[in-house]
Amino acid sequence: MVRSCRRASCFMSELDIVTRLRGLAWAGNGVVLGIGDDCAIYRPRGGEELLFTCDQSIEGVHFLPEQAAAITGHNALARSLSDIAAMGGDPRFCLVSLASQDEKFIAAFYRGLLALARRTGTVLAGGDLAHSDKVYCDVTVCGSAPRGKSLRRSGARVGDLLYVSGRLGKPWGGRIRPRLELGRALRGRATSCMDLSDGLALDLHRLCVESGVAAVVERVPVMRGATLERALHGGEDYELVFTMPPWKIAPRGTTLIGSIVRGKTGAVAFQGRPLAARGYNHFG
Amino acid sequence: MVRSCRRASCFMSELDIVTRLRGLAWAGNGVVLGIGDDCAIYRPRGGEELLFTCDQSIEGVHFLPEQAAAITGHNALARSLSDIAAMGGDPRFCLVSLASQDEKFIAAFYRGLLALARRTGTVLAGGDLAHSDKVYCDVTVCGSAPRGKSLRRSGARVGDLLYVSGRLGKPWGGRIRPRLELGRALRGRATSCMDLSDGLALDLHRLCVESGVAAVVERVPVMRGATLERALHGGEDYELVFTMPPWKIAPRGTTLIGSIVRGKTGAVAFQGRPLAARGYNHFG
Repeated sequence: MVRSCRRASCFMSELDIVTRLRGLAWAGNGVVLGIGDDCAIYRPRGGEELLFTCDQSIEGVHFLPEQAAAITGHNALARSLSDIAAMGGDPRFCLVSLASQDEKFIAAFYRGLLALARRTGTVLAGGDLAHSDKVYCDVTVCGSAPRGKSLRRSGARVGDLLYVSGRLGKPWGGRIRPRLELGRALRGRATSCMDLSDGLALDLHRLCVESGVAAVVERVPVMRGATLERALHGGEDYELVFTMPPWKIAPRGTTLIGSIVRGKTGAVAFQGRPLAARGYNHFG
Repeated sequence: MVRSCRRASCFMSELDIVTRLRGLAWAGNGVVLGIGDDCAIYRPRGGEELLFTCDQSIEGVHFLPEQAAAITGHNALARSLSDIAAMGGDPRFCLVSLASQDEKFIAAFYRGLLALARRTGTVLAGGDLAHSDKVYCDVTVCGSAPRGKSLRRSGARVGDLLYVSGRLGKPWGGRIRPRLELGRALRGRATSCMDLSDGLALDLHRLCVESGVAAVVERVPVMRGATLERALHGGEDYELVFTMPPWKIAPRGTTLIGSIVRGKTGAVAFQGRPLAARGYNHFG
């Protein structure tokens, strides 16, 4: 059994990945103290509320060992950024906990993660490193929205129209693209929003439960090469599902798929039939 | 290979641990939206700065499989709270990512974690659940301090006196007690502070590196039954080491152990001899 150094700063002794990460990371976005102390420090701005989410990425569960490490790093951050997008937030910073024993993996993982972090303006503010034979990762992201303007699951009202972004049924293992721009555009327009991480059927059911409503779905934009089954119950779309009053205009790149109706809380119908609230089993 | 539901809300299907956690968790502390949406929402107060830390707890690395699950849960949170204490912060909320496949373990883990959370005023604001054969956990804690008052590792100055809390050399596997009260009491008094998670020798070296100074240690309060070796290089103390100008009075329960001196940056001497910056290998 390998004893880890739980602190990033005693990991990889001489190579000192923390020193390298400190060089790669950058401050800003309100992060006034980053990697290298007991905690990172963030100074909030007046009028903002902060959004927090964390998502695990576990080898053999969320990704297969043969997946390129850079994509694993990208997706580990992208999953959490997708939650920030779903709330209409701007990413501020992330904390990355990683357990692995493969230096090459760690380097490529951070390369993939940091490329996405830079592109989305997400500061790497801290984290934790440990040794482990299997790769575990947990990424926490903090986002920001104007006070009271975050998009929740609970705001859908009877009569609202129902939309999704993109086309559904993405194959598993691809690069997740968090819909941050769309999420921001929906602030003040959408009444509710969430990201699709377990398939439209299950996630829309959850949105309806939180809002105390039911939904009818008439059509679904299925991506080329995917089945309708996958578009309804697949779990790798990371698109946004959202509701708006009928008089509001939906942003480009989104599709009207149905509406919010009175009915049994959480019930979703697809083309006139009840849709089971089940997700997709990737490993079958 | 078991495919997890990455979302807490589809874990344990019918039992629905999330519903149970929503019942056990409570709002407050600025957390205006907790478990159940894509993100938790925190509304900062004017004049505060926020502290963030995360620590992993991995079966076979940070704890042995035979450790009681309630202690594992307690310690998973306590490790991160200790970092908040080291910065002089008040805990606000935590996010808990947990991977396990044992329902009994999960229930006891949360019992231990939530008992400490309540006692320390830490709101459980969210997290992520997944299936895994080995237990993996990562706890992120957000703390708060008055703007500019957080204690850093980098503030030690030549001539400062050096203190530790408690007695060092704790046996491995015990219940970690984060020194939150002491950390708060040191705000505005200590020039630097950090918690001892890898042993005094290694951690004091790090504090000196961040402050650009050297240190001499004359004595160490060794706990009954522990060796000096363990007190210097053990990694389970979670006490605070801090520096103060000589004219300030140290809080009760702390011991003067030495002082900050001019010298090679990061160098630590113990009773006149150089002290190696090495931690303790628990698994030997």
